[in-house]
Amino acid sequence: MSTAVAPPSGHQPDRQSDEQSDQQSDQQVADLARRARVAANELATATRATKDAALHAMAAALLEHAEEILTANAEDVAAARADGTPEHIIDRLSLDHARLAGMADGLREVAGLADPVGEVVRGSVLANGLEMRQVRVPFGVVGIIYEARPNVTADAAGICLKSGNAVLLRGSSSAKRSNLAIVEALRAAAVASGLPADVVQRVPAESRASAQQLMRARGLVDLLIPRGGAGLIRSVVEESTVPVIETGTGNCHVYVDAEADLDMALRIVLNAKTHRPSVCNAAESLLVHADVADAFLPRVVTALQEAGVTIHGDERFAAYDGVVPATDADWAEEYLGLHISAAVVADLEAAVAHIRQWSSGHSEAIVTGSQAAARRFTAAVDSAAVMVNASTRFTDGGEFGFGAEIGISTQKLHARGPMGLPELTSTKYVVVGDGQVR
Amino acid sequence: MSTAVAPPSGHQPDRQSDEQSDQQSDQQVADLARRARVAANELATATRATKDAALHAMAAALLEHAEEILTANAEDVAAARADGTPEHIIDRLSLDHARLAGMADGLREVAGLADPVGEVVRGSVLANGLEMRQVRVPFGVVGIIYEARPNVTADAAGICLKSGNAVLLRGSSSAKRSNLAIVEALRAAAVASGLPADVVQRVPAESRASAQQLMRARGLVDLLIPRGGAGLIRSVVEESTVPVIETGTGNCHVYVDAEADLDMALRIVLNAKTHRPSVCNAAESLLVHADVADAFLPRVVTALQEAGVTIHGDERFAAYDGVVPATDADWAEEYLGLHISAAVVADLEAAVAHIRQWSSGHSEAIVTGSQAAARRFTAAVDSAAVMVNASTRFTDGGEFGFGAEIGISTQKLHARGPMGLPELTSTKYVVVGDGQVR
Repeated sequence: MSTAVAPPSGHQPDRQSDEQSDQQSDQQVADLARRARVAANELATATRATKDAALHAMAAALLEHAEEILTANAEDVAAARADGTPEHIIDRLSLDHARLAGMADGLREVAGLADPVGEVVRGSVLANGLEMRQVRVPFGVVGIIYEARPNVTADAAGICLKSGNAVLLRGSSSAKRSNLAIVEALRAAAVASGLPADVVQRVPAESRASAQQLMRARGLVDLLIPRGGAGLIRSVVEESTVPVIETGTGNCHVYVDAEADLDMALRIVLNAKTHRPSVCNAAESLLVHADVADAFLPRVVTALQEAGVTIHGDERFAAYDGVVPATDADWAEEYLGLHISAAVVADLEAAVAHIRQWSSGHSEAIVTGSQAAARRFTAAVDSAAVMVNASTRFTDGGEFGFGAEIGISTQKLHARGPMGLPELTSTKYVVVGDGQVR
Repeated sequence: MSTAVAPPSGHQPDRQSDEQSDQQSDQQVADLARRARVAANELATATRATKDAALHAMAAALLEHAEEILTANAEDVAAARADGTPEHIIDRLSLDHARLAGMADGLREVAGLADPVGEVVRGSVLANGLEMRQVRVPFGVVGIIYEARPNVTADAAGICLKSGNAVLLRGSSSAKRSNLAIVEALRAAAVASGLPADVVQRVPAESRASAQQLMRARGLVDLLIPRGGAGLIRSVVEESTVPVIETGTGNCHVYVDAEADLDMALRIVLNAKTHRPSVCNAAESLLVHADVADAFLPRVVTALQEAGVTIHGDERFAAYDGVVPATDADWAEEYLGLHISAAVVADLEAAVAHIRQWSSGHSEAIVTGSQAAARRFTAAVDSAAVMVNASTRFTDGGEFGFGAEIGISTQKLHARGPMGLPELTSTKYVVVGDGQVR
């Protein structure tokens, strides 16, 4: 018979050269995935103590290898500048000692979180005496396709390692030198902790072919998570045959009900829009019940404009100075900046209908003093998070107390909302008997 | 502003004619999905009492309309016979009063199960006083693509309705008259119970285009579940941009350990292979530890052959009369009949390696008296169900006490193993505060 045991990984951190990687990337991604599987099989049964030791070793390695990592990063930054990359992208790409220390802290924090692997999700004894339990197990091999930020390299590696998954990291070409240096440090630390180097691998980012191969590696890769802009996520969702978790698009609404405390409403609208406009849980659209429009519109228009926000409004809002008339494109837009669409709605049901039509299903908030309105809104609005009298900005793994977050899922399959460690696991049933047959 | 509330469904069971449906099926599937969404929004907030009443009404309607359904089925059967369809397919296609009564019983059983919608999966109060809870909600619109058996039409409709999902049923062309008659009865019963008719809709099955459109209806359909043969499932997985749950392929192994009670092992092997060979949780491969090969092989070969099973064996097994030499194709094969592949392995690790290489990840069993062997096998084998001293045949929603089953998932994302009502739901976070901002 053919038992074909996979060769031992040898626990050696092989240096992955960029030159070799560009050739035959199809074959190479499959090879990387097979090496990841061998490492994943070992990692799946590693104890929490071993995994936490590896995370601490990885944190230390980032600081020990700071000079190599920062030198590599400086080369990436110089190349990006030479290519005319905009300054806000350069900022995302850039590392310094403080950011590196932040990455190390993040790995240590993940070490402090409970291990999801082995958690018994449910269990019972069946009528025939079989003991059945459903337990959390790692997915196995997880691929991450992401853009500029090199800190994602360490964050994603740490979260995947703690949840027992070998990770294939496919960052952007612009960060290739930084990511290579970070991954080398992490791999060496894994080996020093008794884990296979291949629990963390970098997928060459030099050609688009490697991303496409990763997306088509069904059976070799168990899960793919895209992190980045809407274009990246859409292309992964469309092209991938590997199961994907969609993250991040947030066209979030705040609805100010007839029964709202208008001072509270103003605070929430301003916070949701302006606290950090570039992130997915920032508000992009404001809906106001007609009964409070006369009282609320002058206040909210002034406050938003004073905060530098451009309002794209319906007829009611457009009656105010400086408000730009909204088009349908505005209702659909995730501005990710100091813009907001705004409309007056006849009642709560009209607000729900608007949200059903335009929302991306991330986060929506109602401001109301009415129990009936809150109950109807939370039941009728089907988004990952539905807030009552709170800012949409709270949809966040850290705020929810998850301790670490690999992204915010806007799909309904498997995980929805902020994804922590348990969301990076699957389950299996373990059934123990004493000879039962049917 | 554009609030564009969808028109009321009117709660009228529109007759879906086959002729109209073949034209412009692209547009039609999208239209059906949009109607399903309107119905799903209403169904999502329906009480358990309403849903259970509808399930009882549907059960009654199947019996009231028995003559129409059986007449339509007779036409399907006659057409299939005229096309030269094999008799075992004809059997799957055929309905009679007893099978119809079984379908009605199934709907009543689903009515008796707990409602998964609204279940609080977790909840806590955050440090800032926000009350956070994660609650089960329906997916919304679920598509089922399935083959011959018309009983799936009622089963899937009942399970989807109870879990709050509007369903798009795309059965096979050969059952189109039966499915149409069943769906008409179910729709009328839904309306009589105060639910929209469009909670259950049939997707025309006359052309392959309708299935393809269903697979590409991302955003309109939340989840697609293929039920049928390996070819159907593979094509849905490959082509679909809608999230898919893969069901059903079972290349299941029984491993007889060195420490096995050989009488128990014989009972389990025979049960797993011969109790119902055509189903996915039947055993397809037998592995025997070398230490017990001399004692066990003569017994198991004789018993399997007496039960009519053809053994495809490695060299050790092939030494016995009537055993056919196995090729690599045999290790990968899901026979779904009275065949089994069989090999002697050096030890437990070789059994694990063989299973990792060849299993479809459905169900594997170890027979052993050793606690250490059981612990290692259940940890190292990553399948939906891992059995110790029990038949693989127990991987089943009914056996696990789930009460209803839409299929057995062999993927790791979202659901793994038998899928009951909770597996047909997503979750959302409801966060209630009193004005919290960041």
